[in-house]
Amino acid sequence: MFTPGPTEVHPQVLQAMVRPLQNPDLDPDFYTFYDDLCEKVKKILRTRNDIILTSGEAIIGLEAAIINTISPGEKMLAISSGIYGDGFANFARMYGGEPITVKFPYDEIIKPEEVEKVLEKEKDIEVATLVHCETPSGTLNPLKEIGEICRDHGVILIVDAVSSVAGVPVETDKWNVDINIVGSQKCISAPPGVGIISVSKNAWEKIEKRDKKNSIKGLYLNLLSWKRDWFENRIFPYTHTASLLYALDEACSLILEEKLENVFARHEKVAKATRLAVQAMNLELYPKEEKYCSNTVTAIKLPPRVEDEKLRNHMLQKYGVMIAGNWGELKGKVIRLGHMGYNAYPDKTIHAIFALSESLKDLGFKNSTENAVTILKKQL
Amino acid sequence: MFTPGPTEVHPQVLQAMVRPLQNPDLDPDFYTFYDDLCEKVKKILRTRNDIILTSGEAIIGLEAAIINTISPGEKMLAISSGIYGDGFANFARMYGGEPITVKFPYDEIIKPEEVEKVLEKEKDIEVATLVHCETPSGTLNPLKEIGEICRDHGVILIVDAVSSVAGVPVETDKWNVDINIVGSQKCISAPPGVGIISVSKNAWEKIEKRDKKNSIKGLYLNLLSWKRDWFENRIFPYTHTASLLYALDEACSLILEEKLENVFARHEKVAKATRLAVQAMNLELYPKEEKYCSNTVTAIKLPPRVEDEKLRNHMLQKYGVMIAGNWGELKGKVIRLGHMGYNAYPDKTIHAIFALSESLKDLGFKNSTENAVTILKKQL
Repeated sequence: MFTPGPTEVHPQVLQAMVRPLQNPDLDPDFYTFYDDLCEKVKKILRTRNDIILTSGEAIIGLEAAIINTISPGEKMLAISSGIYGDGFANFARMYGGEPITVKFPYDEIIKPEEVEKVLEKEKDIEVATLVHCETPSGTLNPLKEIGEICRDHGVILIVDAVSSVAGVPVETDKWNVDINIVGSQKCISAPPGVGIISVSKNAWEKIEKRDKKNSIKGLYLNLLSWKRDWFENRIFPYTHTASLLYALDEACSLILEEKLENVFARHEKVAKATRLAVQAMNLELYPKEEKYCSNTVTAIKLPPRVEDEKLRNHMLQKYGVMIAGNWGELKGKVIRLGHMGYNAYPDKTIHAIFALSESLKDLGFKNSTENAVTILKKQL
Repeated sequence: MFTPGPTEVHPQVLQAMVRPLQNPDLDPDFYTFYDDLCEKVKKILRTRNDIILTSGEAIIGLEAAIINTISPGEKMLAISSGIYGDGFANFARMYGGEPITVKFPYDEIIKPEEVEKVLEKEKDIEVATLVHCETPSGTLNPLKEIGEICRDHGVILIVDAVSSVAGVPVETDKWNVDINIVGSQKCISAPPGVGIISVSKNAWEKIEKRDKKNSIKGLYLNLLSWKRDWFENRIFPYTHTASLLYALDEACSLILEEKLENVFARHEKVAKATRLAVQAMNLELYPKEEKYCSNTVTAIKLPPRVEDEKLRNHMLQKYGVMIAGNWGELKGKVIRLGHMGYNAYPDKTIHAIFALSESLKDLGFKNSTENAVTILKKQL
């Protein structure tokens, strides 16, 4: 499973779920466990902001961030260079918001100065959204610079860091990320089913303001139910998914034991080696420039006359390696190697590159596996 | 853990989560597994309707059922004899619906003829909601009769069967339950984090009609995203929580191996014995009449001068048994024994009754543990 999330999961993380279930509503020991887990999550997100762990995957966080901040008729800046960036604008539109977009092609990354220009002009924008790593494109946006611009303009920044946190540096607090959304199944390499949302004081103020003007509806996606129930009264708004949190806890412990800087270095090494190997295979990276690439996922243009599904099925059936295709306008054109989290190790990467190269050869695309693997091994 | 969900979980069910994770979006074997799991769920719910399994707990189902059927300004019949029954009306109100209620006291159950009266009068009601087992009150409503009345009036029936399915008979199709909502952590005794929703053809028509008139917003709680993505195109609307589904699958297999009729008989036996033992302890059942009681949970009035939290903490600390308190107007007045699913076995029940009786004695309430346990053992 060399896909950009879900990734392979460390056996210790799976094993953590065998722990006899606690009653997450009533067992005082569960509350202690939960608090400790949130402290670990804070260390990984580099934040002192409030942490919400959801039962349900990270897309809950993306949708909730919009519902809870944007009133119907309100402008929002959707900074987008990819499918998920556009997704934020779609969520805003669904709920009656008016997204203004700063848009870059999917194979490029955002130029922060373009964000600044719009914020200079549109003074009534209070919220901006950004996707840090655009997983479908394999790109990484300049979060730090955009965070600073948003801070200077008093704008709340909502970030989808689902495929970047725990793979590349993300400084939630230093970079002014007001709402940061992360998934369990990407670089953290826990099973899917938990979303992580960090919420700053400024974001809470905006959420309260939005609620006063225009009451936020419902329960499951309502961040104020977390504020009122959990943060103010230590009651979970719903029965929590204890077993998945045991797994998340073990995955976070493994990351913190390894130390974040070592985790990032491991991702960087594997990613650079993968990019070199891919190019040695006569393949082209999808991002226009190598400096746009994320160290968590490599997006590759499919060579002419190689059919996406045929290639991936062949890889899976003959070599036991699963890689990802793509969606929307990238479907059938761009494939992806997910060297994130527990996947970002030499053995798994070599196995995946070998399988990709041999499969391409099997399907008639000329290239040398020896070249690719030799380059990879040298780098790793 | 003798709480009315989460319950104790069978070791085999926990062990199922150690299975190496499949990519739930991309692995063809996961799709086969998922289809098989849905067939098992259908057998337990006694339905041929479409099954949706959510990542996130059953309350998603309750909220989604309302959002997806009731338009702002639309009337809805909230049939309520308890806290969750009222909750359906609250969800409707939150989203701009106009609930009309048929209300009975929390210690009684619904009289079906009262439902009929309202439906005769209010001809424009298209949707009714009902909670089968009111867990906080320990009561079981006459679902079959109410289902028939709704069918005769062409009304879509939404049922919270969270604490009844797999504990007492629930005939989703025969009893005209259009949307049936069940949780993983109650009588099915899997870990919390998965909701089960069955949707009938009539319910889908109502959902489509509501959407045409008044577009259903969002993704996570939008049942139409399941219809369009999953049922029509075999794409999950979000990355599914594979590990929890492995556990749910194992839990469903255990139930089907035991056979539903045996599961119900086991619940009945344990419930009857518990009620007798509780009464032998000089305690009073909360439901006004014993025939109102659900076989999945026993609600007991706290005797005078025994403090709720003190009693439960004492039971947990001295005897290692956790039981549940209550909420809302029942808080501090009614405690609950959750003999459902994997809890509904003689050994666990005897342990719980012993702990309750001894704790009551420790706190100065006169009663004979010997009496209670003797009666219990004779019944079991």
